Amino acid sequence: MSEKQIKDEQRHKKKMKKQKKKIDAGIASAIEERGVIILLTGDGKGKTSSAFGMIMRALGYGYRVGVVQFIKGEQLSGEELFLKNVLPEVDFYQMGTGFTWDTQDRAGDIEAAVKTWSVVEPMLSDQSYHLVVLDEITYMLSFKYLDEKRVVNALTARPSNQSVVLTGRGGGAAIREIADTVSEVKEVRHAYNFGIKARKGVDY
Amino acid sequence: MSEKQIKDEQRHKKKMKKQKKKIDAGIASAIEERGVIILLTGDGKGKTSSAFGMIMRALGYGYRVGVVQFIKGEQLSGEELFLKNVLPEVDFYQMGTGFTWDTQDRAGDIEAAVKTWSVVEPMLSDQSYHLVVLDEITYMLSFKYLDEKRVVNALTARPSNQSVVLTGRGGGAAIREIADTVSEVKEVRHAYNFGIKARKGVDY
Repeated sequence: MSEKQIKDEQRHKKKMKKQKKKIDAGIASAIEERGVIILLTGDGKGKTSSAFGMIMRALGYGYRVGVVQFIKGEQLSGEELFLKNVLPEVDFYQMGTGFTWDTQDRAGDIEAAVKTWSVVEPMLSDQSYHLVVLDEITYMLSFKYLDEKRVVNALTARPSNQSVVLTGRGGGAAIREIADTVSEVKEVRHAYNFGIKARKGVDY
Repeated sequence: MSEKQIKDEQRHKKKMKKQKKKIDAGIASAIEERGVIILLTGDGKGKTSSAFGMIMRALGYGYRVGVVQFIKGEQLSGEELFLKNVLPEVDFYQMGTGFTWDTQDRAGDIEAAVKTWSVVEPMLSDQSYHLVVLDEITYMLSFKYLDEKRVVNALTARPSNQSVVLTGRGGGAAIREIADTVSEVKEVRHAYNFGIKARKGVDY
């Protein structure tokens, strides 16, 4: 065996040992039970609806749920009507009419975002909430309407039993970094691009 | 102006005219109102939960919903408990214990799949259903447990007001082709890979 071959073999063994250690550690730690941060991002259809599906999941076990929606117009969509009318036990707050994409009123938007955040913070420090959904929050970070550090701090300091779902396209790298699970919903095709109107009871 | 510049300008004008025509056609045809087929695929977290979020959306308007789940174990997950206990008005069917990944009983699996499909077909021809969810159906096609042509025919022949959500990794190209909207949920990161157990009320 040449000197090079010996070195290669040693390198390989070392690598495998490291790999085994990593896998063993993975198996050992797979017993960790705690709440998670889930980020649903990307340009495809299904982020908000997925968050709402998780609400149903948590409610199925009788867990307490909080839902806060950033960037929402005046008209309630189907899932929002359902929350308000059928599930009054869910704590539900919308940034609402204080904000629209069209206001062009940066100061007013920031005020609305900060006011909405003041509803979120108490939820993130209350362990009675099993699940907290922060719908469309990523925009608040990319527009710099909310302080990223403050949001990250509140998320990481939350009770360990609590899970949080964050939705929205893009969003800060900081949030992506602290998320336990990140799914990117990619638009492969959308009916809208084929002239089909958004469908009531499906798209909104 | 040189001959080349003239040609470039003509080419540009032609291109813009074509673009305008395309956009105008898009606006004109964007008035089409009908049910859609939505395929939620990919390896990331959020496909089934997204389908369940759309159930909430449809129920918010009081629409009738049918839910059929392929590949499901014996234990009910949170969203299934919620459907059974809180939303008995939703027609809900599970392939159930007749099938598991571990049975290794191909004939038995096919029988269960075909039996389940016999529940789906009447829904797909009943216009009283605004939304039909076929959870994990793509596996039935990739395993060839269901006849792809039969599934595609039933989907395309459905009442025009009805929307259908199909979920599952992979799945046949034929289904992908007839879907109006296709979202691919890409796993960027998953808590499981960091030793964190699936979370009750969030993951199931």
